Amino acid sequence: MIDNLDKSILQTLQDNARTSYAEIAKQQKVSPATIHVRVEKLRQAGYIVGTHVHVDPKKLGYGVCCFIGINLARAGDYPATLARLEALPEVVEAHYTTGQYSIFIKVMVKSIDDLQRLLIDEIQSIEEIQATETLISLQQPILRPVPI
Amino acid sequence: MIDNLDKSILQTLQDNARTSYAEIAKQQKVSPATIHVRVEKLRQAGYIVGTHVHVDPKKLGYGVCCFIGINLARAGDYPATLARLEALPEVVEAHYTTGQYSIFIKVMVKSIDDLQRLLIDEIQSIEEIQATETLISLQQPILRPVPI
Amino acid sequence: MIDNLDKSILQTLQDNARTSYAEIAKQQKVSPATIHVRVEKLRQAGYIVGTHVHVDPKKLGYGVCCFIGINLARAGDYPATLARLEALPEVVEAHYTTGQYSIFIKVMVKSIDDLQRLLIDEIQSIEEIQATETLISLQQPILRPVPI
Amino acid sequence: MIDNLDKSILQTLQDNARTSYAEIAKQQKVSPATIHVRVEKLRQAGYIVGTHVHVDPKKLGYGVCCFIGINLARAGDYPATLARLEALPEVVEAHYTTGQYSIFIKVMVKSIDDLQRLLIDEIQSIEEIQATETLISLQQPILRPVPI
Amino acid sequence: MIDNLDKSILQTLQDNARTSYAEIAKQQKVSPATIHVRVEKLRQAGYIVGTHVHVDPKKLGYGVCCFIGINLARAGDYPATLARLEALPEVVEAHYTTGQYSIFIKVMVKSIDDLQRLLIDEIQSIEEIQATETLISLQQPILRPVPI
Amino acid sequence: MIDNLDKSILQTLQDNARTSYAEIAKQQKVSPATIHVRVEKLRQAGYIVGTHVHVDPKKLGYGVCCFIGINLARAGDYPATLARLEALPEVVEAHYTTGQYSIFIKVMVKSIDDLQRLLIDEIQSIEEIQATETLISLQQPILRPVPI
Amino acid sequence: MIDNLDKSILQTLQDNARTSYAEIAKQQKVSPATIHVRVEKLRQAGYIVGTHVHVDPKKLGYGVCCFIGINLARAGDYPATLARLEALPEVVEAHYTTGQYSIFIKVMVKSIDDLQRLLIDEIQSIEEIQATETLISLQQPILRPVPI
Amino acid sequence: MIDNLDKSILQTLQDNARTSYAEIAKQQKVSPATIHVRVEKLRQAGYIVGTHVHVDPKKLGYGVCCFIGINLARAGDYPATLARLEALPEVVEAHYTTGQYSIFIKVMVKSIDDLQRLLIDEIQSIEEIQATETLISLQQPILRPVPI
Repeated sequence: MIDNLDKSILQTLQDNARTSYAEIAKQQKVSPATIHVRVEKLRQAGYIVGTHVHVDPKKLGYGVCCFIGINLARAGDYPATLARLEALPEVVEAHYTTGQYSIFIKVMVKSIDDLQRLLIDEIQSIEEIQATETLISLQQPILRPVPI
Repeated sequence: MIDNLDKSILQTLQDNARTSYAEIAKQQKVSPATIHVRVEKLRQAGYIVGTHVHVDPKKLGYGVCCFIGINLARAGDYPATLARLEALPEVVEAHYTTGQYSIFIKVMVKSIDDLQRLLIDEIQSIEEIQATETLISLQQPILRPVPI
Repeated sequence: MIDNLDKSILQTLQDNARTSYAEIAKQQKVSPATIHVRVEKLRQAGYIVGTHVHVDPKKLGYGVCCFIGINLARAGDYPATLARLEALPEVVEAHYTTGQYSIFIKVMVKSIDDLQRLLIDEIQSIEEIQATETLISLQQPILRPVPI
Repeated sequence: MIDNLDKSILQTLQDNARTSYAEIAKQQKVSPATIHVRVEKLRQAGYIVGTHVHVDPKKLGYGVCCFIGINLARAGDYPATLARLEALPEVVEAHYTTGQYSIFIKVMVKSIDDLQRLLIDEIQSIEEIQATETLISLQQPILRPVPI
Repeated sequence: MIDNLDKSILQTLQDNARTSYAEIAKQQKVSPATIHVRVEKLRQAGYIVGTHVHVDPKKLGYGVCCFIGINLARAGDYPATLARLEALPEVVEAHYTTGQYSIFIKVMVKSIDDLQRLLIDEIQSIEEIQATETLISLQQPILRPVPI
Repeated sequence: MIDNLDKSILQTLQDNARTSYAEIAKQQKVSPATIHVRVEKLRQAGYIVGTHVHVDPKKLGYGVCCFIGINLARAGDYPATLARLEALPEVVEAHYTTGQYSIFIKVMVKSIDDLQRLLIDEIQSIEEIQATETLISLQQPILRPVPI
Repeated sequence: MIDNLDKSILQTLQDNARTSYAEIAKQQKVSPATIHVRVEKLRQAGYIVGTHVHVDPKKLGYGVCCFIGINLARAGDYPATLARLEALPEVVEAHYTTGQYSIFIKVMVKSIDDLQRLLIDEIQSIEEIQATETLISLQQPILRPVPI
Repeated sequence: MIDNLDKSILQTLQDNARTSYAEIAKQQKVSPATIHVRVEKLRQAGYIVGTHVHVDPKKLGYGVCCFIGINLARAGDYPATLARLEALPEVVEAHYTTGQYSIFIKVMVKSIDDLQRLLIDEIQSIEEIQATETLISLQQPILRPVPI
């Protein structure tokens, strides 16, 4: 279990991982050494699993984000299909979900033409897939981490 | 436009933002100063938009991830509904998508009971919403950033 | 937490609540007093919540079992609609479910004509209901309690 | 055909099978022997098909109740699939229904993770199944026997 | 209850109501008077409810047969909508059905243009109707009475 | 082309084929011989294709009327499937329709149990059928011939 | 009625309206005057309704073609909604169709962002529209006139 | 890039390709030679891709326009199916779309009977097609080129 100080540290570093321990210490009215100890503890306990720069997908040209619901010819083809999807770098999320689709994936591509190529040349060449249904995200007004 | 050195730096820092410039410099066979200059340039040009620690949602107790398709009573109620959804911290993504739903959101909650409370007490109390359809993610075998 | 003896007792009484403690004791190679103590403990701890005779619905004339998916005009009408459904004795189960329906109910009626009356005269007179979809169970090859 | 006294007895024992014949006799203003005779008659005529303790599924850890609509690759695969489903103890009900699914089942599992295992490892390994659609019950406000 | 002679008579007259009693009598090896008595009995008992010439709809120009599934704004608008549909002579059947539609009708019109007028000018002017879905019959290979 | 007198005669005989020519002649203010000539002409021209007694399906025990949408494994299996359906006397109509089903049939059966047998033993044993969706008619408030 | 010479002329001019009458005359082995007379006749009889240059939408920047199924709050709102859609130049086709949508339109826009603006700012501001479903055309391998 | 004069010329010729350069020149207050130069430039740059007479499909007897959504047995059968559809002249458009269909086509036929023949004899004989869903256009109130 983590306490309120841990939560404040996680919140601050989740917002901006470059915040100095000195600054966090000042905000929380504890010593920088305490922050250091706590961060190490949170890392070892698995609360913090990495530090990443966030690269803007639009600057890299990824203008089209979409969700693709996949239906398989046989429900049992799930593991084989997943392995094939993993080899496609444009597939940034895959979920096994309740509801009308066998697999539900999130895809980032650079253009409608790239989406066409991905669907026709790559995803459709996976023999286990019977049908796909694509929802294109036209606007993404909310994107934020889980509340701490 | 960015060159291959820029791309290597982005890839390295996206994987692990704590990699030292010295280490990246050695890998790329350039001076650490070059790395420093390039990172600053990528930041100013908007390629790097932030540095974040990644907090494991499961450790915080967020055991249930789901997608909720929302249908509105009137298509024009979209802006008002969005404002109401933004006030719910469990809503971590919202998309305006083509396809059968008016709004498509991703939600992280701690349990099936919390999902029930969120749906019945919060989302259903938004008067503009006519119906919701929930897909619970039972397994998320792929989660990764866009390829650089 | 319950142990294997508790589980065996629960299993036996779930199958047939009229099994005598003496018989259970003999099967489990313990004294009848032990069974008595354990059953009382399971009752007080809330594992056993009642003892019921099972009345055959077909003998009472309930020849038609069906599931009805209900869609509301507004998602927020759920509590009011539930109160109305509770007043209909033919509604033997009601669920608030993920998926395409607002409310999902199980209904037992005596005939197709009774189903028509229930739907047209009772369920449709609930103003908050926009539409219903009925799945009639033509055969119920499995009906059993949860495994212990 | 059964008369009003029979119905009162069935109702009382359905609510609580441990009610003594003396108590029912007093309520109904008849002799305990009459109750005894009637109960035996109702048992032999098949109205009463058993007596069971009701074990609370939540206490046993069964936190997740869901309905799964199953579509088969061929409509004729119904009997074979049913036999496979019968071997899964988590399947507590199975219906052959009119409407959009080939088979409609009710499942009780201990957690979302168990549901995932059941779906991926067990139900999907049944070769005759083409697709499944899962509705998770988030709340079950009504559960009661048929009216007598 | 009716016997085999009754059934044979019904079958014969259902196929061709102009068959003479003498002819039926000969086939069934009874007297014409017997046939007369039986037919009268079947009429009075309500088995025979009328005698009609069958007019070929195609000769009258009714070239398009279709089924229209109707969804109402409120499930309770069923009686009012039915009264409005009854006033449209092209509506030759109306059913209150289980499944995805509120009302399911069969319509005979002379052309695609007449179908357009019926849908836009007549059926859509019924305020209680939210949406309609039309299935046009392109071929009707089977049309026959119930087996006797 | 037919004139108004022809239409009146068709209307009268469609309502009741036992109306005498004398009666129709009186109503229409023409001679009975004229009616006779016209009826013969309408028969030879194919307007009148038969005369039938209408047998009440409910009196014969056909208590359940339903529509079944059929989806085939391959769209090209239509002719083979149709031949199989024709051999089932309970199938009183079959349509090849636009919309979501491959074949759309109307079925009359005596009970829910008969419907189960028809679906499981007969229709599902047709190998070309992938899935069926059944809409049971709970009430049929309109049934009438086309307007003349 | 038109003859084979008329059909050949229509086919030639439909392919390329700039073909000279002399050239068509030579192909068809008739005099240029005959072609002139026939073309005038086809124009006056309404077979030829105009001559147009075909402007390549892609060159004008129209990179995204999509179909949008529209559902209205009330089926009767069709004429009012149509008038509003007519005022949007991006709507290049509108159909009143059988099936699941009230109105079905074809839209040409310059980008995914323009599609978002059209949907959110224009189409959703039409109060009569309850919901829209967008199918984006990723590839259009066939586009040709009707056969003559 | 094209300027306003180019756009005016395109607009005029798209409306009516027979407008003389003199007339366009007068409207735009430039010399006819300028119009000539510009039109040649627009042709060479690919803005103008052809000139066609528009033949009225209704005059040729094409009374029925419909959209057919096609689902394939395997998503990968797309190229083979497309080749088969291309051989059917009634298929005037084919799209590979996001959403619920594998392929979405527009078809022009002369009658409901021709549609039946096309669907049953031609489209269904394409083995890769699992199912089709047809939307018939009952009215086409908008048909116009893209705005320039």
